Amino acid sequence: MILSDKRSIARLVDICHQMGVKELVFSPGSRNAPLVISFVESGLFECLCIPDERTAAFFAMGMAIQSDRTVAICCTSGSAALNYAPALSEAYYQGVPLLVLTADRPVEWIDQGVGQSIRQNNVYANYIKKSFEFIQEASKEEDIAANDEISIQALQACQSGFKGPVHINIPLKEPLYGTTLYKETVELPLATNHNADVIKLDFDRLGGLWQKCSRKIILFGMSKPDVELQKLFQYWHGSGQVVILTETSSNCYVDGTIQTIDRLITGIENDAESYRADLLISIGSAVVSKKIKALFLRNKPSYHWHVSEDTAKDTFRALTDYIPMDALSFLDKLSNLVSPNEKLFQDKWLGYNNQLKLKHNEFVESCAWSDFRLFSHLLNAIPKDAVLHMGNSTVVRYIQLFDPREDLQYYGNRGVSGIDGCSSTAMGLSYLSEKKNVLITGDIAFYYDSNAFWHKHRPPYLRIILVNNEGGSIFRIIPGPSSTDQLDTYFEAHQKMNARHLCAHHRIKYMSAADESEYQECISAFFDDEAGIKLLEVKTPRQLNDRILADYFEYIHKE
Amino acid sequence: MILSDKRSIARLVDICHQMGVKELVFSPGSRNAPLVISFVESGLFECLCIPDERTAAFFAMGMAIQSDRTVAICCTSGSAALNYAPALSEAYYQGVPLLVLTADRPVEWIDQGVGQSIRQNNVYANYIKKSFEFIQEASKEEDIAANDEISIQALQACQSGFKGPVHINIPLKEPLYGTTLYKETVELPLATNHNADVIKLDFDRLGGLWQKCSRKIILFGMSKPDVELQKLFQYWHGSGQVVILTETSSNCYVDGTIQTIDRLITGIENDAESYRADLLISIGSAVVSKKIKALFLRNKPSYHWHVSEDTAKDTFRALTDYIPMDALSFLDKLSNLVSPNEKLFQDKWLGYNNQLKLKHNEFVESCAWSDFRLFSHLLNAIPKDAVLHMGNSTVVRYIQLFDPREDLQYYGNRGVSGIDGCSSTAMGLSYLSEKKNVLITGDIAFYYDSNAFWHKHRPPYLRIILVNNEGGSIFRIIPGPSSTDQLDTYFEAHQKMNARHLCAHHRIKYMSAADESEYQECISAFFDDEAGIKLLEVKTPRQLNDRILADYFEYIHKE
Repeated sequence: MILSDKRSIARLVDICHQMGVKELVFSPGSRNAPLVISFVESGLFECLCIPDERTAAFFAMGMAIQSDRTVAICCTSGSAALNYAPALSEAYYQGVPLLVLTADRPVEWIDQGVGQSIRQNNVYANYIKKSFEFIQEASKEEDIAANDEISIQALQACQSGFKGPVHINIPLKEPLYGTTLYKETVELPLATNHNADVIKLDFDRLGGLWQKCSRKIILFGMSKPDVELQKLFQYWHGSGQVVILTETSSNCYVDGTIQTIDRLITGIENDAESYRADLLISIGSAVVSKKIKALFLRNKPSYHWHVSEDTAKDTFRALTDYIPMDALSFLDKLSNLVSPNEKLFQDKWLGYNNQLKLKHNEFVESCAWSDFRLFSHLLNAIPKDAVLHMGNSTVVRYIQLFDPREDLQYYGNRGVSGIDGCSSTAMGLSYLSEKKNVLITGDIAFYYDSNAFWHKHRPPYLRIILVNNEGGSIFRIIPGPSSTDQLDTYFEAHQKMNARHLCAHHRIKYMSAADESEYQECISAFFDDEAGIKLLEVKTPRQLNDRILADYFEYIHKE
Repeated sequence: MILSDKRSIARLVDICHQMGVKELVFSPGSRNAPLVISFVESGLFECLCIPDERTAAFFAMGMAIQSDRTVAICCTSGSAALNYAPALSEAYYQGVPLLVLTADRPVEWIDQGVGQSIRQNNVYANYIKKSFEFIQEASKEEDIAANDEISIQALQACQSGFKGPVHINIPLKEPLYGTTLYKETVELPLATNHNADVIKLDFDRLGGLWQKCSRKIILFGMSKPDVELQKLFQYWHGSGQVVILTETSSNCYVDGTIQTIDRLITGIENDAESYRADLLISIGSAVVSKKIKALFLRNKPSYHWHVSEDTAKDTFRALTDYIPMDALSFLDKLSNLVSPNEKLFQDKWLGYNNQLKLKHNEFVESCAWSDFRLFSHLLNAIPKDAVLHMGNSTVVRYIQLFDPREDLQYYGNRGVSGIDGCSSTAMGLSYLSEKKNVLITGDIAFYYDSNAFWHKHRPPYLRIILVNNEGGSIFRIIPGPSSTDQLDTYFEAHQKMNARHLCAHHRIKYMSAADESEYQECISAFFDDEAGIKLLEVKTPRQLNDRILADYFEYIHKE
């Protein structure tokens, strides 16, 4: 291979290849030339080019979520690197492996009046799993070896335990464009043994508690689909041993269990004690429902175990054990133990859930055109086996109110829950996906991230539903802002616009529906099999949406 | 005034008012509600709302540059804060005062599985002048006083010495929307004395050198207009004492001196010794010309003094004295000293400069349609007394080749020289400007920052020239990338698009010119007096632009 004549760069390419990196997203620049030349010329990687680094990083994150591989991103020096920051914070809290390669000016020229330079070393300090800096212009064997070690450690850190973004800052001297024949092979050390067995758990005590507690709840946050876990939960549910609470983003369809926490909780609050767990086990990452957090905070379980390779999270201020393992390995051990079967406790939860489900269906039947009604239609219309991307923040909250579909895979940026990269992430994930992908997004999130479409990398199939309620409708829903004079301007960011011209600019096929009948007319044509991106903008009544949602909660919870 | 019932927030509003803040830019959110409510309700500030925080921060920076006041920006918690980062790095290196107010979740809930939270404390560590965190929910008098002290220190740090961005992270507990009557007044301490006299300079020695050296050069980087400095330089130039080198962004028009460094330097390189300074004084901030840096590095002055309130910068590895004062105060002292007048040295520089000027004019007369020719036309067509915003990176480089106009004010983001916020900064600066504002930008920079126009705050007069050369033409100009196979895709980011639809989307009047004659036809109509924003997209031949620029340098430097 003809690679950069900077030996550590050529060896980084070799190491990335050997350690399973297959895709890179570059943003144009000059300082990163040795990296561009080497990765592209090697022919070993799919190399994309996305000019806006903010988009590039979210796009790469989407690719990494889909492929379960580390995706590398690479940019030039200066503020370019800072545009990665929003996506890195999301990847950090969501546990997505990204290798961040920032080219830098030579260290001796930082803060010396040379252009396009900032202090890049460890610049992502608060939201990066690990951060390294290459020895500049390494040529001595010991320096080459030290840089190899950085490359290897960085990729190991990306991919091990709770995954995440890792940064290598790479100071580079001119000339940047020299190449040479690469004839080496980096010898990787034997893989470090990250065996879960080394974790010392007092399993006797935990198993004892599991057998003692008769009111057990498992709360399942965001997760990728996991068939084995799903089977286990279906078994526990069937045998009445445990109450299983999931959200759509748990991607764990357990027939008959509670999958719509948010519509349930309000009614429980008045009779909280009889719903109280003695043992709560939380697994997965972020939970969308704020109500469940509030309930468990006020009505604490006697024991709370958090099972995760991430860090201990005491979300309910009741944490008794933190179990740093993957959930399946741990829960599987428990499943061998006989545990009490307090059917009454499960019946209480499930009975109430079924009651609300009936009322939910009644309300859906009769409610007026609104965000709520649109979602009730949409969630049936989405093609079979699709991946559903839920935009922040109104969209993902509405979707939690409806029973999940077993055939769908649900995804949302719930690490930090920003609106900044919903479209870019959906673009990146669907770019590598063989399924049909559907993004439902609000208008503020959509316009915020319109650079998601400013590049040449088109996913095979993406449909975008743009819910145009003329602003950030979340602020009409949550209590507080709706009572202030500043609602329109500073919270909701009320705007009247449509996406027609923007879609023309980005060569996205555009359709629109001003009301329910127009929606009904076009929805099946919209979800046709044609490849590429289409967008359907659906107008909903801004001033009515929040009232109908309030009516909904009142209706399902009234006696 | 009815302000937030969180007392430290109300007092922050009071302090901002007393210390001269007049404008705030908010981005929508909920956590920052106490700040939104208080600043807006006080009626003491102009409050803007811009949804994309990246744009908001660059826009605010433009406002602060224009007004010479600290502008505050305020956002909600989570990744929102990280979208400020690119503009903060630019403001940090350019010395622009911004007060960054990030609302945060309560400290005890960080990393506890609660949504929209990251570790915000000191999150801008590498590119912020100072960083603080409020004591949460302060109610004891000592805590209130401590928060007051933070507010005061933060604003002092923004505004004193070399100005810059300062961060206050503000953790806030719910409820967020409570208000109460504010009846207090914060007593500000007497202003700290930041008197330049406290700096201990060995002026006898420096003055002695000034009088001894007969080959003196002043290199003037980026600066705001300064009439006194201009007068002093005109006098020094006229008396033949000093060679003055300026760029357009120095905003210092000294008749007859060298104002186009970049077109001069190549020819000097062969005879460098006779152009060598014994004393070089650098003032102002960033210098655009890379060639002057290279020349002085190879051909070092015997003494180099850097005069700046920022930090010591040894750009030429020849620094003998760092003088931490504002340039005028220091140079004024020197002007009282008699100094040798080696006319021959000045004549050498000026003679060569005049020779190139003639050749430059000859080339302009005859050259074919191209970026170069477009700039030669444009720089004459810009309305009298306008503010000219120079986009990064090709645009600002071309403009340095043409004699500056005395009536124009030149501005460019040359702190970090990113392409990320050129339009947003121009929007913010022109929003507060009473002059006609003109932005010349390349296509990559323009599309990158298209959210610059996604909000309601329109400047009174802005004209945008979009130079469409189908990609990042800078990479065709600088040596290196043009020799690689990856030029089109990874360096230049070649694209074929136009801004027609995007302008329609943002309600910007759009005109276009496909060649020189179309340009000539429309340019005077484009620069009419109509208020608001218009954009003229001018097509130049991508494959020819770099060759014509190379021809230009060959032509002016051949014997």
